Amino acid sequence: MKPIKKRLLTPGPTMVPERVLEALSRPTLYHRSPEFKEVFLETRELLSKVMRTEGEVLILTSSGTGAMEAAVSNLFQPGDSAIVVVGGKFGQRWEELCRVYSINPIVINVEWGRAVDIEDVERALKENPDVKGVLVQICETSTGTIHDVRGIGELLKNYPDVLLVADGITAYGVYDIPTDEWGIDVAVTGSQKALMTPPGLAVITLSKRAVERIKPRNYYFDLKKEIKQQNKGQTAYTTATNLVVALNEALKMIVEEGLENVAKRHKVLAEATREGVKALGLELLSSNPANGVTAVRCPEGINGQEIVRVAREKYGVTIAGGQEHLKGKIFRLSHMGYVDQFDVLTGLEVTEFALKELGYEGFKFGDSVRAAMEVFYKNGV
Amino acid sequence: MKPIKKRLLTPGPTMVPERVLEALSRPTLYHRSPEFKEVFLETRELLSKVMRTEGEVLILTSSGTGAMEAAVSNLFQPGDSAIVVVGGKFGQRWEELCRVYSINPIVINVEWGRAVDIEDVERALKENPDVKGVLVQICETSTGTIHDVRGIGELLKNYPDVLLVADGITAYGVYDIPTDEWGIDVAVTGSQKALMTPPGLAVITLSKRAVERIKPRNYYFDLKKEIKQQNKGQTAYTTATNLVVALNEALKMIVEEGLENVAKRHKVLAEATREGVKALGLELLSSNPANGVTAVRCPEGINGQEIVRVAREKYGVTIAGGQEHLKGKIFRLSHMGYVDQFDVLTGLEVTEFALKELGYEGFKFGDSVRAAMEVFYKNGV
Repeated sequence: MKPIKKRLLTPGPTMVPERVLEALSRPTLYHRSPEFKEVFLETRELLSKVMRTEGEVLILTSSGTGAMEAAVSNLFQPGDSAIVVVGGKFGQRWEELCRVYSINPIVINVEWGRAVDIEDVERALKENPDVKGVLVQICETSTGTIHDVRGIGELLKNYPDVLLVADGITAYGVYDIPTDEWGIDVAVTGSQKALMTPPGLAVITLSKRAVERIKPRNYYFDLKKEIKQQNKGQTAYTTATNLVVALNEALKMIVEEGLENVAKRHKVLAEATREGVKALGLELLSSNPANGVTAVRCPEGINGQEIVRVAREKYGVTIAGGQEHLKGKIFRLSHMGYVDQFDVLTGLEVTEFALKELGYEGFKFGDSVRAAMEVFYKNGV
Repeated sequence: MKPIKKRLLTPGPTMVPERVLEALSRPTLYHRSPEFKEVFLETRELLSKVMRTEGEVLILTSSGTGAMEAAVSNLFQPGDSAIVVVGGKFGQRWEELCRVYSINPIVINVEWGRAVDIEDVERALKENPDVKGVLVQICETSTGTIHDVRGIGELLKNYPDVLLVADGITAYGVYDIPTDEWGIDVAVTGSQKALMTPPGLAVITLSKRAVERIKPRNYYFDLKKEIKQQNKGQTAYTTATNLVVALNEALKMIVEEGLENVAKRHKVLAEATREGVKALGLELLSSNPANGVTAVRCPEGINGQEIVRVAREKYGVTIAGGQEHLKGKIFRLSHMGYVDQFDVLTGLEVTEFALKELGYEGFKFGDSVRAAMEVFYKNGV
């Protein structure tokens, strides 16, 4: 039978709650109106709460990559050096951005699927006393791996001139991250991940010392101008007003659920997913797996892109494949944002259906579901 | 963790497709406008197609019970006799309606969960040569049982003065029912079941001989007036215009999927549900189970209302309990309308979680899921 429903289980965009869709559908507000100003300022406050920072919080009308570019282009100058942790596609993006803005990237290459070794960061800092920043992912989405950004922040307490710039695009809303406490100077995230809002908005936070370092190098992502405007409840240019209203609603849902509960939910969903795929005889790609997305190595002889294709075409479920050299080698099940235990079980079921169809024999139907259900039950979920 | 999503797996109201919700949300039309007239007439045509009848098709702004009342009150006169098949709560409703309208119900009592024996209908017809109608459910929703209405229609070919009145509230949109071919003179259904629309509309079809018999006995459900108005694209009184627009969209979805495919999908969903619950060591209530809803006997010592409560409170999934003397003894999993294989699996999973929590030990997690997945896979679903 042809799929009658579409289900979105990719690591962004993610499923949007009905409440947020309803907010999105309200009549469009004028971006210079008092009504919008109120919503905008409240949204910034909610972001401060969810991202746990007392620094500046700016909303940009762009994808998460826009916020990454804003970070690099405003905080570093031509000829500056920055340590860049590259353990996946998004680490590569930091590196590419550095090159575009004539910043010298001191790359720490990490095997895709592994977390960066803190000692390697320490060594790079010692060997390059002039670095101006460390650029890293909290979660490297392409491999489903968590880097120890808290540990890097700890290390940087001895380097007062080095900014910690963290891509938290698939981390905020999955984990309860105390941005200031961890010493993250600049955090970026996007609306379309665990913030449960459609794509189109990015967020960037800036510590006091980050604000002092701002020297804008392009027009649209001029953070000096944005800080000035946004503190008045405005944006420099027209912002995506409906998306801001939607994000406002989504952030309220996160605050209502409670940051700790949100983090606990994701922890259990991730654990259940991991136990589920392991029960199929499959291996995780990551040695330090994230709670927002699980990357799974394909069984011998089975192409991950085919798993993705069968899941989408035959079952109406969109999961993600691998990127770059991992294309075909892995597939990724997302469990971030508006996701509950039954969504995780659906993701495992579609994996089982697709694997069976593609000839993988190493399991019986329901094996992954059983393992995941046991995790849920054990955790009182 | 608190449930973050609500899932509706009851035998009405059922889940409403996004397309239908979108249609529902369009600006309200005036019920006497040319725009509405066009939608209304098209909706009646779509109903004729889906219900496979060339008779009159009337849309009533009421629940399905309203259409049942319209059938009884327009087609039978005080003192008339009618054979009533009572094998559940909705059979009882026919009987109650007969009494309200001073019609003598000749009741064929059928054990709840069993289908009526055609020979019993034949005997009743012979013993009561003056009966004016046979009132029956196609699917008795309270027990998830299919009566052989086709067989009754066959029988009635020898009784040209006896109208066959069939409650198809949970049958149309689940099965591909050739209303005219089966000899159903009057069929009633509701918007909120397999027609995938929110509650608020009912449908009644009338064969030529049924139309000739109409003598209205109340004001709101005056079918003579409705036929006259509806053939002009109007209704006698204000109709629920947004619901009609929504129903129009839902019927288009059914026509696009194809009646045969819709029926096949429900057949497989039902079979998977039945195999799933059996794999938990549970018994079906019905000896002739329907494809729209599955009634399951509770294990010894477990109250069905508790299963329903745990599913709703702890997991956010609404399933149905039993009614009347079956309350507490059964629970019902619905799989009609906008339902796919993953919804059925969710229904089984929540059943497993609830049963485990209530102390039933006769299974391991995933047992029902495995059995159901095998049915889906075998059927190429």
